[in-house]
Amino acid sequence: MSSFYHGAVLRLSVFGQSHAEAVGMTLDGLPAGLPLDLQRLQRFLDRRAPGRNDWSTPRREEDSPEFLCGLKDGKTCGAPLTAVIRNRNTRSGDYEQLRRLPRPGHADYTAQCRYGGFQDASGGGHFSGRLTAPLCVAGGILLQMLETRGIRIDARIFSIAGITDNAPFTGSVSEKAFPTVSDAEGVRMREAIAAAGAEGDSVGGVIECRACGVPAGLGTPMFDGVENRLAQLAFAIPAVKGIEFGSGFGAAALRGSENNDPYVFEGGSVVTETNHAGGILGGITTGMPVVFRVAVKPTPSISRPQKTVNLETRQPETLRVQGRHDPCIVPRAVPVVEAVAAIAIADLILEG
Amino acid sequence: MSSFYHGAVLRLSVFGQSHAEAVGMTLDGLPAGLPLDLQRLQRFLDRRAPGRNDWSTPRREEDSPEFLCGLKDGKTCGAPLTAVIRNRNTRSGDYEQLRRLPRPGHADYTAQCRYGGFQDASGGGHFSGRLTAPLCVAGGILLQMLETRGIRIDARIFSIAGITDNAPFTGSVSEKAFPTVSDAEGVRMREAIAAAGAEGDSVGGVIECRACGVPAGLGTPMFDGVENRLAQLAFAIPAVKGIEFGSGFGAAALRGSENNDPYVFEGGSVVTETNHAGGILGGITTGMPVVFRVAVKPTPSISRPQKTVNLETRQPETLRVQGRHDPCIVPRAVPVVEAVAAIAIADLILEG
Amino acid sequence: MSSFYHGAVLRLSVFGQSHAEAVGMTLDGLPAGLPLDLQRLQRFLDRRAPGRNDWSTPRREEDSPEFLCGLKDGKTCGAPLTAVIRNRNTRSGDYEQLRRLPRPGHADYTAQCRYGGFQDASGGGHFSGRLTAPLCVAGGILLQMLETRGIRIDARIFSIAGITDNAPFTGSVSEKAFPTVSDAEGVRMREAIAAAGAEGDSVGGVIECRACGVPAGLGTPMFDGVENRLAQLAFAIPAVKGIEFGSGFGAAALRGSENNDPYVFEGGSVVTETNHAGGILGGITTGMPVVFRVAVKPTPSISRPQKTVNLETRQPETLRVQGRHDPCIVPRAVPVVEAVAAIAIADLILEG
Amino acid sequence: MSSFYHGAVLRLSVFGQSHAEAVGMTLDGLPAGLPLDLQRLQRFLDRRAPGRNDWSTPRREEDSPEFLCGLKDGKTCGAPLTAVIRNRNTRSGDYEQLRRLPRPGHADYTAQCRYGGFQDASGGGHFSGRLTAPLCVAGGILLQMLETRGIRIDARIFSIAGITDNAPFTGSVSEKAFPTVSDAEGVRMREAIAAAGAEGDSVGGVIECRACGVPAGLGTPMFDGVENRLAQLAFAIPAVKGIEFGSGFGAAALRGSENNDPYVFEGGSVVTETNHAGGILGGITTGMPVVFRVAVKPTPSISRPQKTVNLETRQPETLRVQGRHDPCIVPRAVPVVEAVAAIAIADLILEG
Repeated sequence: MSSFYHGAVLRLSVFGQSHAEAVGMTLDGLPAGLPLDLQRLQRFLDRRAPGRNDWSTPRREEDSPEFLCGLKDGKTCGAPLTAVIRNRNTRSGDYEQLRRLPRPGHADYTAQCRYGGFQDASGGGHFSGRLTAPLCVAGGILLQMLETRGIRIDARIFSIAGITDNAPFTGSVSEKAFPTVSDAEGVRMREAIAAAGAEGDSVGGVIECRACGVPAGLGTPMFDGVENRLAQLAFAIPAVKGIEFGSGFGAAALRGSENNDPYVFEGGSVVTETNHAGGILGGITTGMPVVFRVAVKPTPSISRPQKTVNLETRQPETLRVQGRHDPCIVPRAVPVVEAVAAIAIADLILEG
Repeated sequence: MSSFYHGAVLRLSVFGQSHAEAVGMTLDGLPAGLPLDLQRLQRFLDRRAPGRNDWSTPRREEDSPEFLCGLKDGKTCGAPLTAVIRNRNTRSGDYEQLRRLPRPGHADYTAQCRYGGFQDASGGGHFSGRLTAPLCVAGGILLQMLETRGIRIDARIFSIAGITDNAPFTGSVSEKAFPTVSDAEGVRMREAIAAAGAEGDSVGGVIECRACGVPAGLGTPMFDGVENRLAQLAFAIPAVKGIEFGSGFGAAALRGSENNDPYVFEGGSVVTETNHAGGILGGITTGMPVVFRVAVKPTPSISRPQKTVNLETRQPETLRVQGRHDPCIVPRAVPVVEAVAAIAIADLILEG
Repeated sequence: MSSFYHGAVLRLSVFGQSHAEAVGMTLDGLPAGLPLDLQRLQRFLDRRAPGRNDWSTPRREEDSPEFLCGLKDGKTCGAPLTAVIRNRNTRSGDYEQLRRLPRPGHADYTAQCRYGGFQDASGGGHFSGRLTAPLCVAGGILLQMLETRGIRIDARIFSIAGITDNAPFTGSVSEKAFPTVSDAEGVRMREAIAAAGAEGDSVGGVIECRACGVPAGLGTPMFDGVENRLAQLAFAIPAVKGIEFGSGFGAAALRGSENNDPYVFEGGSVVTETNHAGGILGGITTGMPVVFRVAVKPTPSISRPQKTVNLETRQPETLRVQGRHDPCIVPRAVPVVEAVAAIAIADLILEG
Repeated sequence: MSSFYHGAVLRLSVFGQSHAEAVGMTLDGLPAGLPLDLQRLQRFLDRRAPGRNDWSTPRREEDSPEFLCGLKDGKTCGAPLTAVIRNRNTRSGDYEQLRRLPRPGHADYTAQCRYGGFQDASGGGHFSGRLTAPLCVAGGILLQMLETRGIRIDARIFSIAGITDNAPFTGSVSEKAFPTVSDAEGVRMREAIAAAGAEGDSVGGVIECRACGVPAGLGTPMFDGVENRLAQLAFAIPAVKGIEFGSGFGAAALRGSENNDPYVFEGGSVVTETNHAGGILGGITTGMPVVFRVAVKPTPSISRPQKTVNLETRQPETLRVQGRHDPCIVPRAVPVVEAVAAIAIADLILEG
């Protein structure tokens, strides 16, 4: 029941396993009549796709969605929209041993506990990062819808391996192959990734996301506020282990007089001088940019030997993870973060 | 629609405004036949109640819930359980000016945008921290249920005003008036609170929570995993601006070889040597303690003069927030964090 | 988990047991600023209340709701609205034997199976018709909201004990003590009720409900259409065993050429000459009146001796149900049907 | 948002349009390790498929689902299961005029109102009876699961065109090409269908469904009982306009002493001598067979001339529906009713 998202208006189902016939998604609740720019959607998906540069896995997939329904003459028709992406480049053999030797940091062991050995272990099965491809199809469609309403969502790499890009995040860096604001910090991050990869290791990082143009007054207090929704969706991205809004954990060390954002008028509108709140107060948007950051753990798949247990013999063993893996998934996760933000914000907008 | 929580099995409705007749909650989905220790529940609620010490607001409420239904002979009867807490000590007059002068850091302005001026502004209305009292009623009941299944949830103050208590969190500190592990750090934190309060200012902090005894195999990947659920519930607590699991944001600076938790056998069970995952992999529990931290922003109500705007005259103004406010809500939020953890974990347990 | 209704926009929780402290409800998702006419609401509730005439139980309750929250200066404030009705006139002693001798036609046995003997058996507990009082509070509020949008919902007694009132249902009969269109048929129905009551027996009937002014284009196909929603809500009324829309079961015997409603223009609008569809096609409203009928079974509580089993001794026994019971609940169920219709239609309207 | 079903445990998404690339479904919440007999599933789907006999449309589709994910080695793997059925035999041209000339009894006009002209009108689009094919995929899988738990679901034609088969429904008639109990009544019904078809008209009917082996104690009162769930799902079948449980509308004419089902012991179990309740009391199963009937309206697509309006010219017009249509869809709807019953009962079983 995990694979269904039940928003206020939007409904999303994400399906597939890494080495099944396909991955895909069904999105319902879209307004009818929305034109879809498929080329632009493809460019968005390409930002996530593997095999395109030196820091990502050599597995290369086209990631071209086939739309089975939900469109009529290139526009949404009010019916649920389903798109599937075929899995072509799969090598199941790499993963056979993982049924008995769970990889540290992966879901092998927890899937074994939950599904009693019936889970599809190949390539991580339903837990694979490949499931973020259909998530990006949904998000990419919704980004186009949001743009027609004057809302723009952009994410950037904020830090990798402890190297932080503190340059202010104002414009978009989506077109960059390595989406940092500061190119200098980007170079340092790529060196850190390469160094880790050379040692058969991996690194994590932090992604910052910002939604501009979101009107004030969306969301509600308690269980269904803007933070609740964004958080629920952000943790759908494998490897995300934390989320913070505005000043976030930093706010915990500030005084109220520093963290409170003073109200002022600007061009006739009420705005705040600062945005420690990340555009959200009481679960409701303030009209300022919605800003959040997610922590991405280092890729658990590393080729260095690791301690694990053999679930059959019940003996300790040493595991060397084979297969093709990114030493850092943060760059490819940037559009995925934009995608989940688009799902949450679009749902808020449609709810009104 | 924000005030209803729709878990896998549990349903929770939290209602009330700070200065309405009452606050309260309805909880459905509890197993029938669960005996309720009302005195123990009261002691749990007392940990959250205001007016009990020098670092909390002098507003003193009994916070004694009246149970309207759902119990028969002291045990749950399968019907929804409703409890209400009357609001007695209210001074609406304090808040009259807030309709036109929104307090920075509060939901006054966003509520105005969403509810068009019809919101109950007194005492923060439905946005008030007072709504955490019924949240604690629900959580306190579920903590009793969890204990019968060998699950224990404890939270502690991890940091306040930048002062961190790094002592390992093993036992429970719930009985302490100021629940830190290190009493020395606790003294420093209280001094920081007092210093801020003396200056009409406030401080925030971080609360760490740990659930022990949670079996492996609970939860699911994607939208409904353990992290998604805990996050959705944690952001129901006013002032929470971030959440992280296990190493969380710290994991972003680690290498995979450091962050991956090696599997070993211990007493016949599969455990991990470390717990950077915070007891969760792929959205599913590992059997290790579930560990998370939440960032609590400094109390927005401060008596120092603040810049705001007059929504009627549309002129800038200086606001001095009157009324009774905690210079730091972190200590009182500790049982609230335990409460939301109990709701999430109980729902996972009942779902099975 | 049954007691929570999760509409597209509205959330409703109905709580209480017949002999608990109170019954009540929480309604969330109401627009802010809706003025509530409490006297009118009371008159609506009085139509359902017992003890007011010769065909209903002599148990007399005031059914006066206390509003705990959700209102500010007589208007909805955007926060969840909670109202409770105290149970005053309870005689638990009447029901003691029912734990071991389940009443035929009642939920005693099924509650025993589900709640393992922990259920509150007094007065039917959470299964009691008394729970329709809070349902009417919710519905009565929403009827006021709908009226501001030009929508009017009326129900009438269509048949009792096989006596049918075939008079066309055009105006409202809500003000009548016995809400039939044809007074002559109403007299015959009351005689049938009296005759059954005199024999310690009971009778059932059919209630017809009509919503006028509902705009075309509300609802959706498949799982969430107008029929699906109305049906889900109608079966929340104890004793309802069937629902049909428009021609309903009668349509099964018609030809397509008879059952299809021809489109015509009327005053510039598209309408249908007939309304066999009951105002719904493909799960979506046509703009014609939404019409449905529900079947209400005869009150299961009868004083005539009945065969049952003793769950303790596991021997057959003869049961004589004591206590105060309506020989026919159909008249009091008429406003309840209006109430559930109001919940469904209001949710559709708010969803837009 | 209509196309997603959110059960207690099961989640179902049904997607597709009659003339889109495909129709299909995603089902989540299945237990892992369930073996799937695909040949048996195909035989179940064949009962619904068109073009197989003289009373159904000559459009012939293979209705062979392709499973994209959710299976591993022929067993469910815990991940969502997605199956698609390609649409091959489509003739969009038949439907061009329907954008401006809505067919009486169809959803053309309501879809126009809801989707503003952007709906896919070809072949009924998302409103088409073709969407019951994926519904049967979901139901057929769940029927296999239920069988492993001793639960069997069977439906039969109860009446067509006013001709009723009153023979007691005890065994299964699923293997019959025309599933009545009484073959004599079946012949009369087929004659009525043929007569209507010859006149360019259509007929409706009633389908009865029975689930045996459902344990007592499943379901809950109020909004989420067995009747509520079955009703919500049954109205997902296009053309269903009524549902009744047990004696249903007939109970409205009975006395309580007739309609109450007396409890007796049988082989150590508590059973009822009769089953007017249809196996459900207070929303909870009694352990007796769950019995319900649905009313199916006559196929709205008839070739006889019908009155409608031209939405462009706003003039009255006469419409002759072209294309291939069943003069009676009741026979093909029999497995669809079994399918939705299987979804509801399986969800209750999995919820426990």
